[in-house]
Amino acid sequence: MVDPYEINETGAKAPGIPSLRWEEPPEGPVLVLLDQTRLPADEVELLCTDVPALVQAIRTLAVRGAPLLGIAGAYGVALAAARGYDVEDAAETLEHARPTAVNLGYGVRRALSAYREAVAAGAGAKEAAAAALAEARVVHEEDAEASARMAQHGLAFLGELLPGGGHRILTHCNTGALVSGGEGTAFAVALAAHRVGELRRLWVDETRPLLQGARLTAYEAARAGMAYAVLADGAAGSLFAAGEVDAVLIGADRIAADGSVANKVGSYPLAVLARYHHVPFVVVAPTTTVDLETTEGGLIEVEQRPGYEVTEFPVPSLPGTGMEPGLGTAVAPLGAQAYNPAFDVTPPELVTAIVTEAGVVSPVTRDGLARLCSTSRLGESRSGNGMMAE
Amino acid sequence: MVDPYEINETGAKAPGIPSLRWEEPPEGPVLVLLDQTRLPADEVELLCTDVPALVQAIRTLAVRGAPLLGIAGAYGVALAAARGYDVEDAAETLEHARPTAVNLGYGVRRALSAYREAVAAGAGAKEAAAAALAEARVVHEEDAEASARMAQHGLAFLGELLPGGGHRILTHCNTGALVSGGEGTAFAVALAAHRVGELRRLWVDETRPLLQGARLTAYEAARAGMAYAVLADGAAGSLFAAGEVDAVLIGADRIAADGSVANKVGSYPLAVLARYHHVPFVVVAPTTTVDLETTEGGLIEVEQRPGYEVTEFPVPSLPGTGMEPGLGTAVAPLGAQAYNPAFDVTPPELVTAIVTEAGVVSPVTRDGLARLCSTSRLGESRSGNGMMAE
Repeated sequence: MVDPYEINETGAKAPGIPSLRWEEPPEGPVLVLLDQTRLPADEVELLCTDVPALVQAIRTLAVRGAPLLGIAGAYGVALAAARGYDVEDAAETLEHARPTAVNLGYGVRRALSAYREAVAAGAGAKEAAAAALAEARVVHEEDAEASARMAQHGLAFLGELLPGGGHRILTHCNTGALVSGGEGTAFAVALAAHRVGELRRLWVDETRPLLQGARLTAYEAARAGMAYAVLADGAAGSLFAAGEVDAVLIGADRIAADGSVANKVGSYPLAVLARYHHVPFVVVAPTTTVDLETTEGGLIEVEQRPGYEVTEFPVPSLPGTGMEPGLGTAVAPLGAQAYNPAFDVTPPELVTAIVTEAGVVSPVTRDGLARLCSTSRLGESRSGNGMMAE
Repeated sequence: MVDPYEINETGAKAPGIPSLRWEEPPEGPVLVLLDQTRLPADEVELLCTDVPALVQAIRTLAVRGAPLLGIAGAYGVALAAARGYDVEDAAETLEHARPTAVNLGYGVRRALSAYREAVAAGAGAKEAAAAALAEARVVHEEDAEASARMAQHGLAFLGELLPGGGHRILTHCNTGALVSGGEGTAFAVALAAHRVGELRRLWVDETRPLLQGARLTAYEAARAGMAYAVLADGAAGSLFAAGEVDAVLIGADRIAADGSVANKVGSYPLAVLARYHHVPFVVVAPTTTVDLETTEGGLIEVEQRPGYEVTEFPVPSLPGTGMEPGLGTAVAPLGAQAYNPAFDVTPPELVTAIVTEAGVVSPVTRDGLARLCSTSRLGESRSGNGMMAE
């Protein structure tokens, strides 16, 4: 096995932030990931040559974000097939690498179905692997298209909500090109507003404990030339109180059939603040994030992550610190317990709208959401692969 | 001038966490501060021999917390007098070292009045300095007494609110012995509950950007043997949603005459969450924190602190990093702007009660607050020094 964590320092900044790509060097196919734990200080790539390496990258959040996890999952199956590993096993492991983002399982099952169909049709190992890879590429492209459509729908919806323009948008976590085959979800909407001169300010929650806002969203906003400012998550309240927020835009990791939205921890407090201040709270996510099998928010499994993510601060000069307890700088007393849920769940009554590639649901109702999913092209393709029955 | 930042490594942990003390070595009087920026990793003392050193310690938050700032301000005046500096100048500088905590000016004016009265009565420099020091010691003792009474009143009030015991209390920032001549404000109430076996859990908001919760409150909770857990500020929403919070207890940096409470940024979102979840939101502060001259919350000046507190993480192995831009580890792209208010203001309608050493105001009304202040011994002593007229 090639060293799965061989590190490649990239040269100049790529224009489009390639968060993930498939390559086929002479040594065999690899999935190349931009290590998001090292941003913004270092643009470092991870080369995954097998599924355990990819699973580790998913668990340590080197690759993260609901849509991108779907893409990574699909390529992971293709990688297992191309490298001759047990594809069913690989799919099973990948699907459960993290529990909350439904897209991961979706991507895995898409590539796995293509692989199985090829095998069932009598294809050899090589052709079946090619079928899985082709499907992963389709998942990747579909996500890019979905991104563009969400940006369009979201921008139009913002225009209806806030006809004056000059939007001051608050966002949480990271939902841009780093998590997508395209320009992302919530961030893509803010970016679209920026491009048409309608974004006055992007308020970026730093998003503790792993600082995806400060590290990643600020990085993307800076590259796009947007007017932005980072803030401690607790400072969002002051912005609402001062009337400095026109809308909240966030992504989602799983949306239950009732419209409950699981997203990065800290989203729910924003929803409550937005309601208290009569500010729209808008969720932007592809229909692949909607999980009609999960009937309500209370049934969404929320990943509990290790306490040391809160009680220690990673030392960036040592790659990989923060992934193991005791390697970071302690910011709490030795032995401090921490409560560290990765996500929270916002009930539909606090969500003004869910913007998907297939359109907007507002108000958020079970029926409206089901109708939208049934009309989406992604939904069809998902049903077409028999995924809804699993 | 002796090096004002000579560093003394303390030996074994002192039982009572001496956050501040006056000493008179042969070289002349000094104010010794426990450097709170270095906790919990290092227990290091700062020796201030003059007011500029003390002002720097206040601005960098080496000494912090509303009640303790009052005590430090009083000793600062005594220090200037004892060392033969211009006392009026020193008082002026000290009073404006930080704008939000009203106690700072209160302590400064108490010691200054004592000094002026001594001078007016014909005292020499030495006697006038002794008068200032004696008054600083009284301020210090009064705060310790106030602490004990707040704990008593707070515990009784919690008992009324939550008759079953087994309290799960959420707190923000640091309000214990580190900020007080005694055991603190909100933390002292939680500690009193712990001592009578009525505290099931103390939820400790880490309190970004400077992590006073993770670093200091967890440190005090651990020393007291309390059951506690640290959490990212954004995770508090999940606790409320899960019904895991029985009451919020916080301190205050300034309380306006209408009952608006300025406290560490992130307090207001907790107040909104508490209201949404029908959980009591209780403020614990001595009457010296009430500023009847500030008629309403909107008039409280909120200190805006440098953005690098958000965009950089201090390197604890280098003392003083985080106090200057560029010396910490960047957690946001180079040039990232940040919005960094040190405090937020919670309006009285979201505050269930204000617990002071003189009793409890609940519901929080302008009249109730004024009545309480007029009956408090501290309030009288404050008026007695003509402080209310300034």
